[in-house]
Amino acid sequence: MNYEPININDKLSKFNELWSPRVIAEMNDYQFKLAKGEGEFVWHDHADTDEVFIVIDGELDIEFRDGKVTLNAGEMFVIPKGVEHKPFAKGLVQVLLVEPKGVVNTGEAGGNLTAEDDIWV
Amino acid sequence: MNYEPININDKLSKFNELWSPRVIAEMNDYQFKLAKGEGEFVWHDHADTDEVFIVIDGELDIEFRDGKVTLNAGEMFVIPKGVEHKPFAKGLVQVLLVEPKGVVNTGEAGGNLTAEDDIWV
Repeated sequence: MNYEPININDKLSKFNELWSPRVIAEMNDYQFKLAKGEGEFVWHDHADTDEVFIVIDGELDIEFRDGKVTLNAGEMFVIPKGVEHKPFAKGLVQVLLVEPKGVVNTGEAGGNLTAEDDIWV
Repeated sequence: MNYEPININDKLSKFNELWSPRVIAEMNDYQFKLAKGEGEFVWHDHADTDEVFIVIDGELDIEFRDGKVTLNAGEMFVIPKGVEHKPFAKGLVQVLLVEPKGVVNTGEAGGNLTAEDDIWV
């Protein structure tokens, strides 16, 4: 067993790719992933699971078909399963995601922002 | 659906009880809980689940039978299921816990630090 803490800022310093989540920890069959974003992501949903966003740094808008939530550092939100959403960040945002192992970033939508799954940092 | 962000520091300001986790969010059958601690907790384990600690503020030692990890703000650790551990904080520590709904803070150990489950803040 590894007794090293997982330092979130240290892990964030190790990659720069946007909209490309990196796994930093596993808990049962769930993963904790860091992601950086800037600009618009795509409309998508995750049919089988809720998804948690925790903003570490910057500001993240999450648009829904009938509204929007704005998250700043230290704020979190649970996207219910099956609900279409589109992340948007005016500047660089750094977030911690929590979701089951195997969830793809673009959900059912696909497209060129679809990231490889299960890359650790 | 609620479009309000969950602000971690705002939720922390709403209770003062030590070693008494408060639920702030649910994702599928998992809960996100805030807890405050100072001094020694009890040795315990969770036979059926891993448990995640993310330190929001302060410093948390987690002792194991064969070692220790020290977590500062912005650091996290996954306690594997079945592994005995004892949280300890020299000063006040504020943490975000992630674990399945229904997990009791003292695991199988019981005792007078056992907190009521499923209290939301």
